[in-house]
Amino acid sequence: MKTLIVHAHPEPKSLNGSLKDLAVSTLEEAGHQVRVSDLYAMNWKAVLDAADYGTAASDPLKVAADSGRAFEAGTLTPDVLAEQEKLLWADTVIFQFPLWWYTMPAILKGWVDRVFSYRFAYGVGEHSETKYGERFGEGTLAGRRALLSVTVGGPASHYAARGINGPIDDLLFPIQHGILYYPGIEVLPPFVVHGADRLTPEDHPAVAEAWRHRLRTLETTAPIPYRPQNLGDYDLPSLHLKPHLEPIGTTGFSLHVRT
Amino acid sequence: MKTLIVHAHPEPKSLNGSLKDLAVSTLEEAGHQVRVSDLYAMNWKAVLDAADYGTAASDPLKVAADSGRAFEAGTLTPDVLAEQEKLLWADTVIFQFPLWWYTMPAILKGWVDRVFSYRFAYGVGEHSETKYGERFGEGTLAGRRALLSVTVGGPASHYAARGINGPIDDLLFPIQHGILYYPGIEVLPPFVVHGADRLTPEDHPAVAEAWRHRLRTLETTAPIPYRPQNLGDYDLPSLHLKPHLEPIGTTGFSLHVRT
Repeated sequence: MKTLIVHAHPEPKSLNGSLKDLAVSTLEEAGHQVRVSDLYAMNWKAVLDAADYGTAASDPLKVAADSGRAFEAGTLTPDVLAEQEKLLWADTVIFQFPLWWYTMPAILKGWVDRVFSYRFAYGVGEHSETKYGERFGEGTLAGRRALLSVTVGGPASHYAARGINGPIDDLLFPIQHGILYYPGIEVLPPFVVHGADRLTPEDHPAVAEAWRHRLRTLETTAPIPYRPQNLGDYDLPSLHLKPHLEPIGTTGFSLHVRT
Repeated sequence: MKTLIVHAHPEPKSLNGSLKDLAVSTLEEAGHQVRVSDLYAMNWKAVLDAADYGTAASDPLKVAADSGRAFEAGTLTPDVLAEQEKLLWADTVIFQFPLWWYTMPAILKGWVDRVFSYRFAYGVGEHSETKYGERFGEGTLAGRRALLSVTVGGPASHYAARGINGPIDDLLFPIQHGILYYPGIEVLPPFVVHGADRLTPEDHPAVAEAWRHRLRTLETTAPIPYRPQNLGDYDLPSLHLKPHLEPIGTTGFSLHVRT
């Protein structure tokens, strides 16, 4: 495998830092190639602004159009171009981050905002009444697989089906389906460490072993079976799930996973 | 009302900028006090790091504990202290932002990551086997109301109950419930402008009138009836919704809204 690890934690000696290091060593020992984007160490610019598009920036700024023009002209900033190149190189992408306020830290969201430019990650393919782009299963990054490795402060029960925070799979859906599956990446079930702030040194070997197991079985792990947009499951142009696929009245993110 | 508007768009002449300006003028004309945190104009630091906690930063950095210690010592950075003061001043908070990759832009997530410190927005109240803090309906910001004003690129049908992106209410749940209701803020139904990239000048008056109507009726709008954590709806310590409140087997974010 050619694995890109995108890592987002300010403390190298944190649990997240340890999980990232363990991923590098485990994958390299298994003969895989690994590259790491350690966003804090890179001092990653989190905030998308007109400077990202140079001479392609219009006045007033149009984020989608301008980022697409800069992408097509090859004039996105070097930091963004480098990340796009890594994504195209990789066949597997691991995101290592703590769940802060139920989603990714700002520095990682800013990586998405800036790297996932128009024409690269969205605005790909024909958009008309009969086709709404190549996305959700198709797109620039099709053929790749991703895995979220997430540390969570609260206990697992709070993130269970009836837990007060909402199910962890639903909390991660906007990332897994909305950010990763959108440009074509298949998404493996996440690796979630709960109660991260309460872990004791005695807990560490079990967490490490569980993570090593996931890493060693990445190639044989089945992705979450999200429904592709363009293979018949959705009506056009509404992009509503077809009535026969799930009972009318059913709602929620789980509709978009094949059962 | 005393309204804080937190605004996150890089282009003042954008739809988001116009909606923010319209909120300011509409509320001020109605005699309300308004303060604005224009995050791009403020050059808001989006990335949480050890520098946020000064001498309260431990080595290795512990985000929760260190931010709580800095909060209690009054030594959080001036930019964060100013935002916390605005939140305590306000009775109403409006967030104006574009939905980028199904959630808020990085600069706004970074406002949350840094301003919502431990002991201010979380880690409040007793945490034991019989009580898991004052949160979800209680907390430092109880008594306040918030409203998301969000622009969305895609058409409304893609965000409907069976739409491919998932329902907009579910996409906003991690923000509305997980970020705002958590420290005690009641959340009003969002104001969502769909198809934002396809709006023509002919559409603008209708959007403006709809927004003015929401602003003028803010005080009489009922909040989303999220379930308070500590008023009997949840079992302890699991914080699972009690079996009699929704059928067993039901899952998803909507469980946490009283029906």
